[in-house]
Amino acid sequence: MEIVKEEIIRFLSRGGKDFWSIVSFSNYSAKEVIDAIGTLIKDGIIEERNEKFYVKNPLPEIVSTSYRCSECKGRGVVDEKDRWRELLNEYNNIAKERPRPTTLYDQGVVDSDTALARMLYMLERGDIYKKKILILGDDDLMGILFALSKLPEEIVVLEVDERLVNFIDRISKEKGLSNLKAIRYDARWEIPEELKGKFDVFFTDPVETVKGIELFISRLLEGVKGVGSSGYFGLTTIESDMKKWLAIEKSLLEMNLVITDVVRKFSWYSLGEGDILESDLPIIKENPFKLGNPKTLWYNSHLFRVELVGEKVIKIKGEVDWGRDLYFDEYTYVVNP
Amino acid sequence: MEIVKEEIIRFLSRGGKDFWSIVSFSNYSAKEVIDAIGTLIKDGIIEERNEKFYVKNPLPEIVSTSYRCSECKGRGVVDEKDRWRELLNEYNNIAKERPRPTTLYDQGVVDSDTALARMLYMLERGDIYKKKILILGDDDLMGILFALSKLPEEIVVLEVDERLVNFIDRISKEKGLSNLKAIRYDARWEIPEELKGKFDVFFTDPVETVKGIELFISRLLEGVKGVGSSGYFGLTTIESDMKKWLAIEKSLLEMNLVITDVVRKFSWYSLGEGDILESDLPIIKENPFKLGNPKTLWYNSHLFRVELVGEKVIKIKGEVDWGRDLYFDEYTYVVNP
Repeated sequence: MEIVKEEIIRFLSRGGKDFWSIVSFSNYSAKEVIDAIGTLIKDGIIEERNEKFYVKNPLPEIVSTSYRCSECKGRGVVDEKDRWRELLNEYNNIAKERPRPTTLYDQGVVDSDTALARMLYMLERGDIYKKKILILGDDDLMGILFALSKLPEEIVVLEVDERLVNFIDRISKEKGLSNLKAIRYDARWEIPEELKGKFDVFFTDPVETVKGIELFISRLLEGVKGVGSSGYFGLTTIESDMKKWLAIEKSLLEMNLVITDVVRKFSWYSLGEGDILESDLPIIKENPFKLGNPKTLWYNSHLFRVELVGEKVIKIKGEVDWGRDLYFDEYTYVVNP
Repeated sequence: MEIVKEEIIRFLSRGGKDFWSIVSFSNYSAKEVIDAIGTLIKDGIIEERNEKFYVKNPLPEIVSTSYRCSECKGRGVVDEKDRWRELLNEYNNIAKERPRPTTLYDQGVVDSDTALARMLYMLERGDIYKKKILILGDDDLMGILFALSKLPEEIVVLEVDERLVNFIDRISKEKGLSNLKAIRYDARWEIPEELKGKFDVFFTDPVETVKGIELFISRLLEGVKGVGSSGYFGLTTIESDMKKWLAIEKSLLEMNLVITDVVRKFSWYSLGEGDILESDLPIIKENPFKLGNPKTLWYNSHLFRVELVGEKVIKIKGEVDWGRDLYFDEYTYVVNP
């Protein structure tokens, strides 16, 4: 049996689960999960009742139970001594006022627990303290969190959404975060000349198409200094199958970016809780099952860290004139076509 | 400053540390660490006293402290409810009688905490229960642990060290582990015909040269079924620099193996505690500092998971006639040339 089906059976052995929980648990794409659920029902292995799915013959508990660490949620880093509680409170207070995320730019924001974990992971890996950090797309407000920590030397946020640019700049002024700056920027443009070769670390949560990621990483690569510079980005299995992963990884290596870390299900996003059922997203439109609203955070991504090991090989240079296909392919089930 | 030096300064900010702890903490090769320590001393940034190193101007504690999760040791999985304590006891009792590791075959065995964590990680990823598992090189006795768990369908261990083959087969008989078998096998040989295309999952801790890893993975790839088959192996930064990582990763992708997980410092090995100072290993011979014996486990590797996404592309086929250069290159500081 394919792994996608085995995973569903293993997960449902814990008890009845709704569609969102299954997609969230799976390590395969929403498209594949929808197909697999359909087949498992047809084959009489699982059944659908009141917006939930049940497996007829559950696996032993010792197999189906979770062994992910509850302390760090499987991320490997955690603020055990609450050293950053104040920072987190401040960030939360600021984030309350953020511009509402829009699917126009494929936005879905992480919870503050994720935001802090990202910072701690990067700190642990030596990529925050006294570093110059370039962020492309920052609906998560990572730039504000980094700046509030007082650890990095400088942070520049490139962001297409003017509301976010204004918001970040306003907070930067109000809080006296002199090392944080936001610039209105569309990834299809060339990056500003004065940013090239300036940064130690990049961070992005790219659009999830091969071309989109190549574009984002190319821009960021122009921004970093050279050998030893590092970068972080999220990649999902919900909207990418393993073939897309292979293509993306090949592209990274061709750019001389070695993959040093891949942490599963690191980032958790608030995405559509409350109103997703009214959307035109493929995950709703292509879905044959009876759906309720997601009850908890379900959308997640895996955290990649890469490091530049040779000369910069920048795949996409200069301005490009791409349309909305930058944002979607057959697996991007949570993006409006 | 290069990251390797920054890491050393950050680590020494926690207090004086010996050479082994520094190599253990670093994310760069022993060769690079030795160079970096030398330069930092010459530049007056750190100093050496009584087999320990000290930084003159420590970083703030909030930067130098560890944020790795102490519950799961940064691995992301842990047996929180002690479900496997009995298994672990049984494994420990058996492992006490194991043949003594030999550097002849680049052996260094993991502690039982690592062995269990590997099993839990694989279980969590759906790669243990009812699976057929092929192991190449098993001084860690993972095959025995897997078999004792009663979870996999079948385990075959390919091992060059006859003492280990005999040991595993004896335990298998004594404990009635009918699904565990060990076969004497040298990675330079073709794998037995009856093993080809038979397994769901492979596991190995390969020799750490590009050619060596290509050879090991090629053999294992012949053993697995096809699309969706997965594999696990350890790779260190202690004996591989980032350029070697890039070459290895390129090779994996060329074999249609997508990298799905890279968990930092997952496996911890008993290696040379007690007698390493008397060895001819490069980490001793090429070392200008005054060394004591390692006080704790210091050698570690990062856990890779890969998944086959297309047809098998087997790079090395048939028998090869390679010498001991299979085992070493300029970074393999813990292998006897």
